Amino acid sequence: MTGGLQILPVTGIGDVTPGDDLAELITTAAPWLADGDVLVVTSKIVSKAEGRLVEVPADGPERDEARVRTLESETARVVARRGPTTIVQTHHGFVMAAAGIDASNVDKTHLVLLPADPDASARALRAAFAARGLDVAVIVSDTMGRAWRNGLTDVALGAAGIEALRDHRGEIDPYGNELSLTQMAVVDELSAAAELVKGKRDRVPVAVVRGYPRRTGGDGAGAAVLIRDAASDMFSLGTAEARTEGLRDAARLADTAAATASADPAAIDRALALVAAALTPGTGVTVSPGVLRLTPAGSGSADLVRLGADAHRLRAALAAEGLATTLVAGDAGVTLTFGDPA
Amino acid sequence: MTGGLQILPVTGIGDVTPGDDLAELITTAAPWLADGDVLVVTSKIVSKAEGRLVEVPADGPERDEARVRTLESETARVVARRGPTTIVQTHHGFVMAAAGIDASNVDKTHLVLLPADPDASARALRAAFAARGLDVAVIVSDTMGRAWRNGLTDVALGAAGIEALRDHRGEIDPYGNELSLTQMAVVDELSAAAELVKGKRDRVPVAVVRGYPRRTGGDGAGAAVLIRDAASDMFSLGTAEARTEGLRDAARLADTAAATASADPAAIDRALALVAAALTPGTGVTVSPGVLRLTPAGSGSADLVRLGADAHRLRAALAAEGLATTLVAGDAGVTLTFGDPA
Repeated sequence: MTGGLQILPVTGIGDVTPGDDLAELITTAAPWLADGDVLVVTSKIVSKAEGRLVEVPADGPERDEARVRTLESETARVVARRGPTTIVQTHHGFVMAAAGIDASNVDKTHLVLLPADPDASARALRAAFAARGLDVAVIVSDTMGRAWRNGLTDVALGAAGIEALRDHRGEIDPYGNELSLTQMAVVDELSAAAELVKGKRDRVPVAVVRGYPRRTGGDGAGAAVLIRDAASDMFSLGTAEARTEGLRDAARLADTAAATASADPAAIDRALALVAAALTPGTGVTVSPGVLRLTPAGSGSADLVRLGADAHRLRAALAAEGLATTLVAGDAGVTLTFGDPA
Repeated sequence: MTGGLQILPVTGIGDVTPGDDLAELITTAAPWLADGDVLVVTSKIVSKAEGRLVEVPADGPERDEARVRTLESETARVVARRGPTTIVQTHHGFVMAAAGIDASNVDKTHLVLLPADPDASARALRAAFAARGLDVAVIVSDTMGRAWRNGLTDVALGAAGIEALRDHRGEIDPYGNELSLTQMAVVDELSAAAELVKGKRDRVPVAVVRGYPRRTGGDGAGAAVLIRDAASDMFSLGTAEARTEGLRDAARLADTAAATASADPAAIDRALALVAAALTPGTGVTVSPGVLRLTPAGSGSADLVRLGADAHRLRAALAAEGLATTLVAGDAGVTLTFGDPA
């Protein structure tokens, strides 16, 4: 029964207003704080202390309009929308519903924004405790939704005095297997643990994790390292939004100087199968290496127009297989050269 | 300092093999278990005890082939692929890299699959403790990646004796605001908290959360309630995969009996702006209510073919705006009727 943790709620902090000294409020409420503790502080009270509030009408359409404007100003880009839900990437890089803007636990004439720089907030708060002679780590946490799973959990927006990730890469398990892919987001796990003793209604905006072995002396790199960069984000858009982008890609497909390289014949077959039912009956298709030739179903004007539409269908299907194309329209029909994107 | 939690590691469990009695192993290792405790058990040892192992070659291409076959058998559908990473939805409904199949902490000739029914595993284990006179909750946990955030956290695959979600909906905060959207995934938070004292290498596959107020007498609905259903999943495909689906949508756009309803003129303008640079120079476009007319740049065969391709580009652009179209090719050009999807 050694090596355990305690998760302790900090009660009695009361209302926080702009300009409040959070370290003072927290040490007064928790005189039992000790060196080595990890403080998990709800971002809401950090925002309030820092004055990250926007004044809005208490109700009516003006309130809704103010909320929309506030969301726009906190949004770097929209990830997905459905019904009343808008999931955005904030200027910090967090992907959150409504940019983390919150109307709960605040009077009706204000909205609470996320802290402008949660890692800086965590560092400042840690420094304020250090000035009181306390060596603690600080995590600024908030409640977030997840893709694929119902329910919310608390995660870390900011951190100081603790490494955000615990890295098992390079370690060897007892069977001799290397733990090659395992980096645990421990500040998120600490935030989740702290939420279990905090309350949405109960004015317990801070919890303390005691017994967690911190491995850093300084502030560390903060929670920003948990933000996945665009290049490795496989879910940068909602499915519906990305599918719409694919339609737009088809609408503006460029004639690329495609190298007429050897393309996978199976890819050509899949593209042809995809459009088979949509092509004009009688349109002819001939496949040669690097080239597709299409001939019209008849000699009338309408046949030629339909052939052009068929050719663009096929270009979109080839693009779905990763193949770039160039369309050449001639008197005898259409030639599509295809290959790797230039 | 009341109302806190303790997170206690269970050490000394040792190797688990098929047929082992987990309740026996755990109570022997942790004779201090008490009524009301929440046991968080790593799915790996549940799988091992239940014999959810697949024999595979220790190395070579045969091992890779066996891994691919195993992944296929555990996969309900592929969500996203990039490089060596395949994210799938399992038959349970979990969205996980490699279907949660694990080659760590097992000898090199076996892969460990997820338990076939983790909620049932949790219920069985809870019943085995009850038979020993212990009233505990059981969570079966595993390590999972997340969209948008680096690092992994532990979450619940199965649960018994505890509600998976803590529901704040309908509660009123101290300012009179209803907490309308807040359902906390507490079994995931408990799993994350437990991971902080467990180890990837250290053979601590079980942790105990003491002090968490459970609100159920029976087994409860299990962790399956955390699986988001397809209808409310906004990220059912990776962005690249969904974008490719959009290209396929364009390739097989159907002539739908679109009601020539009043469409938003701004949507038409956006569609025309999208294709403007891609259309054949000289192609004429006329907009009337519910109808777009396109005329060719010239009278040659190639002009008519290009007009057809232009018309399909525009259909894809209109589809991206949510508008269904029907194409009619005539001697004078193309008529696109558009409206809401039938």
